[in-house]
Amino acid sequence: MRVLGIDPGYAIVGYGVVDYAKQRFSTVEYGAVTTEAGVLFEERLLQVYRGLGEVMDRTHPDAVSIEQLFYCHNQTTVIYVAEARGVILLAAHERGIPIFEYTPMQVKQAVTGYGKAVKKQVQEMTRRVLKLPEIPKPDDTADALAMAVCHAHCAYSRMFGR
Amino acid sequence: MRVLGIDPGYAIVGYGVVDYAKQRFSTVEYGAVTTEAGVLFEERLLQVYRGLGEVMDRTHPDAVSIEQLFYCHNQTTVIYVAEARGVILLAAHERGIPIFEYTPMQVKQAVTGYGKAVKKQVQEMTRRVLKLPEIPKPDDTADALAMAVCHAHCAYSRMFGR
Repeated sequence: MRVLGIDPGYAIVGYGVVDYAKQRFSTVEYGAVTTEAGVLFEERLLQVYRGLGEVMDRTHPDAVSIEQLFYCHNQTTVIYVAEARGVILLAAHERGIPIFEYTPMQVKQAVTGYGKAVKKQVQEMTRRVLKLPEIPKPDDTADALAMAVCHAHCAYSRMFGR
Repeated sequence: MRVLGIDPGYAIVGYGVVDYAKQRFSTVEYGAVTTEAGVLFEERLLQVYRGLGEVMDRTHPDAVSIEQLFYCHNQTTVIYVAEARGVILLAAHERGIPIFEYTPMQVKQAVTGYGKAVKKQVQEMTRRVLKLPEIPKPDDTADALAMAVCHAHCAYSRMFGR
């Protein structure tokens, strides 16, 4: 099973593609689609849409794993992030890739076994299961890989009941 | 100048296309793209994206006028609306149509001359300037026509300073 994890945003969209088979992970690629401040917002949306679309076309994931968005402290930012998330969902659905959404707590639980783990613990555990030499930069990329690991674990549990 | 006004949403997206020339309006078409509850959300996004894209391809507007989104009372809904708004902005930008955003107060001011007008006054004034027999249904369509009238007025004022 190949999973594309995505940490949605409009300035930096982290992504990470992992394969999971026989309870072993291998990392296919990871990185971030970035857009420049000062560029027209709709142009940034287009760059996110095309950038993630290219990742999907290149890696052919079986599933997209993306963070569920909640309104939190910054009301303006969350609207922009949601607009970008909309074009990412569109890019995946246009390609027929099923989309799975997880809350931050579900990701923490799935990756570390503890729903209140701190971000660094999640990133470190992700690094270990993927056998990466260090935690990828930026944070958005590390978080995207955790999303991918989360879905692989959850889908596996659903399939085999453990 | 041809303006496509849009009232963004994911269940009902109102739209209205108007021409404005020599300080006179004429209505090209108006309606709503609707999506069904219970359908996968990403499929609804795709329907909104394609539906509005078809309106753009059919009417070739010079500008899109769309409401600026604010966080208000319903935090879950606003995120879904923003995701839908993202794919609408994408559809316009892919076609090279410039996008103009207005706050509800700007629309009220531009259409009725009074920034605190109630919704019905805005709809009634829109109906009058467009010489429609009655206020279009649903509200989303009426609001979209008001968005279009708002931009036509504002763009005209910017061009000719009145």
